[in-house]
Amino acid sequence: MKGSDSGQGGLFGNDAGAPAPKVKKVAKKPARRASAESMAKKQREISVSEFFTKNRHLLGFDNPRKALLTGVKEAVDNSLDACEEAGILPDLFVEIRAMKGHENRFTMIVEDNGPGIVGGQIPNIFGKLLYGSKFHRLRQSRGQQGIGISAAGMYGQLTTGNRVRVVSKTGKKAMAHAFQILMNTSKNKPEFHDKHVEWDKDHGTRVEIDMEAEYRRGVRSVDEYLKQTAVGNPHVQITYRDPQGNETIYERGTEEQPKETQEIKPHPHGIELGLFIKMLQDTAEGTITGFLQNEFSRVGPKVAQNIIKAAKLKPRSRPKSIARADAEMLHDSIQSARIMSPPTSCIAPIGEEVLLAGLRKEIKADFYIAATRPPAVYRGNPFQVEAALAFGREGDTMEVTEEGKILSRKKAKRDDTELLGNADETIKVVRFANRVPLQYQHGACAITKGIMAVNWRGYGMSQPRGSLPIGPMVLIVHIASVWVPFTSESKEAIASYPEILKEIKLAVQECGRKLGTHIRKGKRIAKEHQKRSYIEMYLPHIGIGLQEILGISDKVRDDDVEILTGILERSRKI
Amino acid sequence: MKGSDSGQGGLFGNDAGAPAPKVKKVAKKPARRASAESMAKKQREISVSEFFTKNRHLLGFDNPRKALLTGVKEAVDNSLDACEEAGILPDLFVEIRAMKGHENRFTMIVEDNGPGIVGGQIPNIFGKLLYGSKFHRLRQSRGQQGIGISAAGMYGQLTTGNRVRVVSKTGKKAMAHAFQILMNTSKNKPEFHDKHVEWDKDHGTRVEIDMEAEYRRGVRSVDEYLKQTAVGNPHVQITYRDPQGNETIYERGTEEQPKETQEIKPHPHGIELGLFIKMLQDTAEGTITGFLQNEFSRVGPKVAQNIIKAAKLKPRSRPKSIARADAEMLHDSIQSARIMSPPTSCIAPIGEEVLLAGLRKEIKADFYIAATRPPAVYRGNPFQVEAALAFGREGDTMEVTEEGKILSRKKAKRDDTELLGNADETIKVVRFANRVPLQYQHGACAITKGIMAVNWRGYGMSQPRGSLPIGPMVLIVHIASVWVPFTSESKEAIASYPEILKEIKLAVQECGRKLGTHIRKGKRIAKEHQKRSYIEMYLPHIGIGLQEILGISDKVRDDDVEILTGILERSRKI
Repeated sequence: MKGSDSGQGGLFGNDAGAPAPKVKKVAKKPARRASAESMAKKQREISVSEFFTKNRHLLGFDNPRKALLTGVKEAVDNSLDACEEAGILPDLFVEIRAMKGHENRFTMIVEDNGPGIVGGQIPNIFGKLLYGSKFHRLRQSRGQQGIGISAAGMYGQLTTGNRVRVVSKTGKKAMAHAFQILMNTSKNKPEFHDKHVEWDKDHGTRVEIDMEAEYRRGVRSVDEYLKQTAVGNPHVQITYRDPQGNETIYERGTEEQPKETQEIKPHPHGIELGLFIKMLQDTAEGTITGFLQNEFSRVGPKVAQNIIKAAKLKPRSRPKSIARADAEMLHDSIQSARIMSPPTSCIAPIGEEVLLAGLRKEIKADFYIAATRPPAVYRGNPFQVEAALAFGREGDTMEVTEEGKILSRKKAKRDDTELLGNADETIKVVRFANRVPLQYQHGACAITKGIMAVNWRGYGMSQPRGSLPIGPMVLIVHIASVWVPFTSESKEAIASYPEILKEIKLAVQECGRKLGTHIRKGKRIAKEHQKRSYIEMYLPHIGIGLQEILGISDKVRDDDVEILTGILERSRKI
Repeated sequence: MKGSDSGQGGLFGNDAGAPAPKVKKVAKKPARRASAESMAKKQREISVSEFFTKNRHLLGFDNPRKALLTGVKEAVDNSLDACEEAGILPDLFVEIRAMKGHENRFTMIVEDNGPGIVGGQIPNIFGKLLYGSKFHRLRQSRGQQGIGISAAGMYGQLTTGNRVRVVSKTGKKAMAHAFQILMNTSKNKPEFHDKHVEWDKDHGTRVEIDMEAEYRRGVRSVDEYLKQTAVGNPHVQITYRDPQGNETIYERGTEEQPKETQEIKPHPHGIELGLFIKMLQDTAEGTITGFLQNEFSRVGPKVAQNIIKAAKLKPRSRPKSIARADAEMLHDSIQSARIMSPPTSCIAPIGEEVLLAGLRKEIKADFYIAATRPPAVYRGNPFQVEAALAFGREGDTMEVTEEGKILSRKKAKRDDTELLGNADETIKVVRFANRVPLQYQHGACAITKGIMAVNWRGYGMSQPRGSLPIGPMVLIVHIASVWVPFTSESKEAIASYPEILKEIKLAVQECGRKLGTHIRKGKRIAKEHQKRSYIEMYLPHIGIGLQEILGISDKVRDDDVEILTGILERSRKI
């Protein structure tokens, strides 16, 4: 294969005629500090857990407050995934417990009624980074990286020296396993001891991690995260005990499980050439026809035939023996072929009704609307975006100018205004990725960027340049995908792939257009109302004027004013 | 060790009295979809290169334009590190070459005059993620993760199917090695072939990568990055050839090498307990006295003695046999001990003169200032922040209100205004980390956050809430550290550790205070100037008035006006 695929490299390529770079100026050479040989001796492999220990902020463990949330989130993600995969309505218990004698240490506990974990898998799942069942498949789930819960344990171990404690039971008749796990970070391998224990539960898993942490309520707290989780996952029951011992129960809102998602094959559009070549080499299929039909979704006999024909290949060629140039032809031919959109069975959106019900339950507003986009694809991965918003406070009054600027507003008395912003603040955005509410790094998230890219002035709201719109509004955006591209391992923000940005914009615009109609109506009414109140103010004066001019009695004057008011009233209704 | 370190876990801990969580409501169980057993079978280890192939946006390869910059940056980082480590003044050649027949494919070439790489190391360095010499040491360098250049090659392979091509020569008498390398992503291992070649160069390394890319000039381009690299690294000579064949040479500004940085031991403050326990277990030292003195920096016999005494341990105890509780005591005692700040020999700031020279060369402004903070520590890692700014355009005039709002300004004619922003735009921030200019994700960066957290109104500039200040200013901030905590593997933004944020704020404030004095002076002059121009306008009228009242001649009137003008002139100089 010498040089055949080497592109146009000067020293390697075929175009030897390309000018060789010339060194313009020979640098002075001081005494050498290190040589190629001495440097070679320092080269070493880096264990993935050493890497993430040093870079724990990449995993969401940069500060004690965030660490607590990240830990709980990773455990809850796993519990909900396991329950749903096993078809069990999730019943979760979450506790944050202060550790005695340490002001800044807490134990986080997450217990579920899921299918449990087979004993032999527990050490690796909780004590090894990059280990899991969800990475190698294309199917919507909360976890996907095989990093989360083991990273939480690693952080706990790093800051307290303590082991992760796991109990799991896989069925009524099985004994529960209890594990205590440490991670050997030099080797990225678990060290553990375990025993059988009694557990008065049919099945489920309980994980306890001690960590350096800080507990606070409010924005980006565990409390807030659990509340939003309940909104996006109404089939989940969560009992939450905070460090003061207060218990909050988020009741299950529906007995209906989310749609079961199917694992799918990759969609041929958006598969990179390098990955495609690797698939050709790794496949067990004997012919490229079989390869195309069985390794990808949405490729039937007809489509496969067209692709192979356009690439000028033989349908019965062996995938493994296809030359590099032919593979590229085949790849090109796939990209230009008409292929059905990917199946949506792999994606379970939250659904407009659930989103609206969640908004209605948490927020009193004047106007609610939701929109769901059809599924789309980025890099071969299907995804779907949905959005919902609540605008304006019920019972509130406000004066709005033509440009959407709010002149004055009176707030209705209410307690549950936490989520809905004030009229002079930017809107509140609630972000979900595969039903998980995202708390941090909103500025880096494609959802925020998509919302900012929409022209909200067109919908009657004010919007400073390069900012979120301003007004009393909560906007939920959910992206569901078989692989959500997060901007870091901590899964806090979604990367701005152009296809994803576009869909977010379209979903939000769909809601925005309807909101615009509502706001314009509101403005018309507000204007009318203002005019009318002026006239009403002057009507008695007009009455007095008439009385003076016509010399009518007080009674007739009052009657006339009443008649005029009536006319005004009727005209307003037209 | 059973349970001894298990904190307060309900099922494990000692406080058996803690209330056991109760399941409030037994969930209905539909037919199970998956069981613990079926799920266990899907558990697998994930190769780190599979992980990053799927998450290539984490490495800075989310889109073709950014990919090109990231690739060049990783190669240049390595070249500069190698040259400096070997004490060679770097002479770099960078080329972006369009690939024939592919509109969206380019070859990036980076060639240096560094010490070269020993043949046996080349495949791993370029074809394996998490491999390198810089991760396991504490010393300032551009690369640190062992991911960069192999990630660039992986991306090239993924998008074009082509191999990475490397030539390297370690000395005049040595033959050059030429490698062609592919990465086996399932195993994170290189596959390669190599040969000996002639190369008319004493020593150096040349890397060529074909990749799907987009070439554009302007903000965040390769061009911009190289320009900023030259500013922050005046000892570097760079020859750059763009896809149109235009050559730009960034001439070396100084023959002086940056200060050689020393590898240091970790500073004991900020070492997490878990890491500390691991160090106790891994050390070759026979006593805790030796352990403290030799595994950490700034711990002498006296300090070690005090620490051990405060922890109530024996100085000659063996580190490996120290009990868990004692280790924690020792760790606590270290954290409260007075220990000298870490040595600064591991850090090489750019230096105020170099920063100012760079600013003066690139930007014509009215006012320049720089500040350097003393070194500080986060998580045991020494770091140092320096800042420099250029404000206002030379020859420009402007009217400024008391609040720093600019009413009007006239621009002086000039070409080199690219870097200095307009008066009504937010300031331009140039970020450096270990001398590498950062191009992307400015919003997520501690530098941007630190600048926004400063009250710029106090220095006479306008600043919208939660925003950068507004005005004609370029602000450079450099953080140098033995380990820069980036927010992702792509090394685009610095994580907001509180200690780092604080130092950035302090450095910027130091510049800001001096800028404030300058701006206030400017405002005073502007005000005076305005007053004077009013008076000047009215002086002839006063002359006419005097003439009418006193009946003086035209000559005397004009003389009087001249005298009055003179008085005004003198008064202004006071």
